[in-house]
Amino acid sequence: MEFEDLIEKQLSAHTLFEGRVINLRVDDVLLPNGKTSSREYVEHRGGAAILAVDDGGYIHLVRQFRYPYREAILEIPAGKLEKGEAPEIAAARELQEETGLVAETVEPYGVIYPSPGYTNERLYIFKASGIAKDVAHPDEDEFLNLVRIPFADALDMVLSGQIKDAKTCFAILKFANERK
Amino acid sequence: MEFEDLIEKQLSAHTLFEGRVINLRVDDVLLPNGKTSSREYVEHRGGAAILAVDDGGYIHLVRQFRYPYREAILEIPAGKLEKGEAPEIAAARELQEETGLVAETVEPYGVIYPSPGYTNERLYIFKASGIAKDVAHPDEDEFLNLVRIPFADALDMVLSGQIKDAKTCFAILKFANERK
Repeated sequence: MEFEDLIEKQLSAHTLFEGRVINLRVDDVLLPNGKTSSREYVEHRGGAAILAVDDGGYIHLVRQFRYPYREAILEIPAGKLEKGEAPEIAAARELQEETGLVAETVEPYGVIYPSPGYTNERLYIFKASGIAKDVAHPDEDEFLNLVRIPFADALDMVLSGQIKDAKTCFAILKFANERK
Repeated sequence: MEFEDLIEKQLSAHTLFEGRVINLRVDDVLLPNGKTSSREYVEHRGGAAILAVDDGGYIHLVRQFRYPYREAILEIPAGKLEKGEAPEIAAARELQEETGLVAETVEPYGVIYPSPGYTNERLYIFKASGIAKDVAHPDEDEFLNLVRIPFADALDMVLSGQIKDAKTCFAILKFANERK
């Protein structure tokens, strides 16, 4: 295996909490220097998110209250994977549920690790094209506002710090990079 | 308050775990439609990370084993805030500890929310300039490899998916955007 000098080996595994969204794990590990330590982290099934810029150059965002920050923030449409659900199916589903948009094509646009020190979540990002309007139907306990703005404005909001969500920053900055 | 139609109000708060790095909270909340639900999330003190591109155009990265993924990945130098520590102090400290570099100036480069559905971590990103070599001294239970590569190669690694860490993608894509 690569990077043998960095590897931490699992000595024991403990699940302290199993929730609807996350599990909490605390494992004992063997460090590269032969000492032991513990690692606290979140188990998460993974999430899917989708960049939707329409033919008019507008990006479709959702504003949602994020309880951990006690703040309503702007994000690209996203959600966690259902059990056994393929990420691209989840991305198209969240786009439809949250914004009422359907896409002709949904292509992979990167996978990011949101905070690798303490969560194993993989965020699968997709890019939609050929977007048409259908009907939105958010989850029962999901409340959101739809926000459709010129892509250039969204990029400005990332650069000025008004858009803070990591996956949204990633998708917008990557798309801006491609267009230059 | 803004976005009154989206706000979830705390009804009760429960700390289920207090760890070295994270705490686990499960709160009961009142939803905008008058129903109740619960929110599981991680409390985190916040992290600081620093983009260091030297005068030769090389970016300084660290490769580190991230136990939640069982994988060694590339990241910009980063770490969690010490109690009461200002983010810019933490960023300069992590740069020095992990890479042995000192910077003439450390300027704010954005704040990102890594996964706003279930963590309240704020990641404070900084940009170093006027970089000079000092001596590295990682934490006792921290093992890492230093990686110094041309900035253009790091950008390619973000675009091709070889660099996956969210804060690192953010800093590299933002810097690429500025340079065009």
